Amino acid sequence: MSMYSEQSAVTVLGLGPMGRALAGAFLDAGLRITVWNRTPGRDRELTERGAVGASSAEEAVAASELIVVCVVDYDASDAILRQDAVTDALRGRTVVNLSADTPDRARDTADWAAGHGIRYLDGAIMTPTTTMGTPASVFIHSGPAELYQEHRPVLEALSGTHTHLGEEIGRAAAYDIALLDIFWTAMAGYAHALAVARAEGISARELAPFAKGIGAILPPLFEETAQEMDRGTFSGEGNPMASGASTMAHIVHTSEGHGIDAGVMRAAEGMTRRAIGLGHGTDGFIRVAEVLGRH
Amino acid sequence: MSMYSEQSAVTVLGLGPMGRALAGAFLDAGLRITVWNRTPGRDRELTERGAVGASSAEEAVAASELIVVCVVDYDASDAILRQDAVTDALRGRTVVNLSADTPDRARDTADWAAGHGIRYLDGAIMTPTTTMGTPASVFIHSGPAELYQEHRPVLEALSGTHTHLGEEIGRAAAYDIALLDIFWTAMAGYAHALAVARAEGISARELAPFAKGIGAILPPLFEETAQEMDRGTFSGEGNPMASGASTMAHIVHTSEGHGIDAGVMRAAEGMTRRAIGLGHGTDGFIRVAEVLGRH
Repeated sequence: MSMYSEQSAVTVLGLGPMGRALAGAFLDAGLRITVWNRTPGRDRELTERGAVGASSAEEAVAASELIVVCVVDYDASDAILRQDAVTDALRGRTVVNLSADTPDRARDTADWAAGHGIRYLDGAIMTPTTTMGTPASVFIHSGPAELYQEHRPVLEALSGTHTHLGEEIGRAAAYDIALLDIFWTAMAGYAHALAVARAEGISARELAPFAKGIGAILPPLFEETAQEMDRGTFSGEGNPMASGASTMAHIVHTSEGHGIDAGVMRAAEGMTRRAIGLGHGTDGFIRVAEVLGRH
Repeated sequence: MSMYSEQSAVTVLGLGPMGRALAGAFLDAGLRITVWNRTPGRDRELTERGAVGASSAEEAVAASELIVVCVVDYDASDAILRQDAVTDALRGRTVVNLSADTPDRARDTADWAAGHGIRYLDGAIMTPTTTMGTPASVFIHSGPAELYQEHRPVLEALSGTHTHLGEEIGRAAAYDIALLDIFWTAMAGYAHALAVARAEGISARELAPFAKGIGAILPPLFEETAQEMDRGTFSGEGNPMASGASTMAHIVHTSEGHGIDAGVMRAAEGMTRRAIGLGHGTDGFIRVAEVLGRH
């Protein structure tokens, strides 16, 4: 067993798919854990494997020094943590909130925690449930560095890559938002492409090998254009954004010609044409990011 | 030298960045080529390397049996090919149009070509100019299989991967549209993420390693969800689309809270919420593709 034999090493609040995967990964690492979920009955498999199932959130909180929260968003975590009995039980303990929400909600939660003597770290999980407990999982964290160092051994028991992004509490959520922006926009593009392909008589299986090829060129392009963004120089040589806008119009026309909504690509074309209208047509596409952020 | 010593092996019409890269790759392969561009002066480097610079489009067309067209779109290729003198010179020759446009424009061009005794293949280039002449380049082709086989040796002199997708002339353009849909939507997401990150005090250089991680999870997800699409079963276990919609709302709020246009993500969230409204909230996200294509 472990150094945490007297009480639980960690309490997991929230046993949705990700919460259960997290709790399972703590158990796999040999840690004593306590679990709780608002809707009862979700802890069966975990308690059979040795987790303590608490009968209330305050009981769950009282069982460990470190409380990991993994619910759908901060409305859900507030509904649990900001009940008086739970807030009282949290005093002097550490909350790591791995629920996803906006940087502002993380900052608001940090203010609330400070006002109630609760130590607070924010974090985000960047990889799917299936990666929990494996080296493929990616976690990002923000908040007081000393507090992070104190709880790092328990967090790293989850395996995977853990990065402390800085003391500013909203930083993990800000990275999370930016990265999920890339992920969900790309997935929306893929869903739309599958719909257009199907209308053109191309099955998903036929498109997939080429789609994977497109996916493979993105990471080096992300790297290269990130440098352009930070330097503020956007080379359009070989691929000016005006040419991209022309392609986007072809996609919109083909999609709508099949009666398929092209709202995502219309919006992408719109932001590109606005940048062109501001005189950047011969620049590389990523100049659009700089134009979007202008005030 | 080669089997093409009597005349050019190929004529390249259009000397924009991609046309010049293509022509250069043909030269690297030791082929005799003729080149032409509407705006003069673009052929300097190529003629210094041995290409014949034609003084008119009809002269360029008359120099080779195989004419490769690489201009911005089919409005541009029509403006060249559908001049009487050029059309007359094309009779009995083969045009491979590698310009990007919609499947319908490719079909229209095939009809026009058939009406004028011109043999016609359509194609698309799926990789950047920098890959021309290298094994990393990817070309897709459609049109009569026999005609493709006849010209395959010259096309494959360009190196890279060449795939004949079928006899239906619009097929290469349809793949091109679907794949560029993925590419440009993903790039729009990345540009937007960089803008949001910057507003949150995160530089592109700081975000890039994590963005590359997101990019790396896309290809296997494309493969996996393609199978769901063809089977018509969409497992939302671990990641139901309702949870995706909640994340999209966080992205919209964070973006707009910084005064940054979130039109692309608003459209993506909208299509997701429509699918949820039709009863698919617990399905996997890619069900959205099936809903988009419904009539």
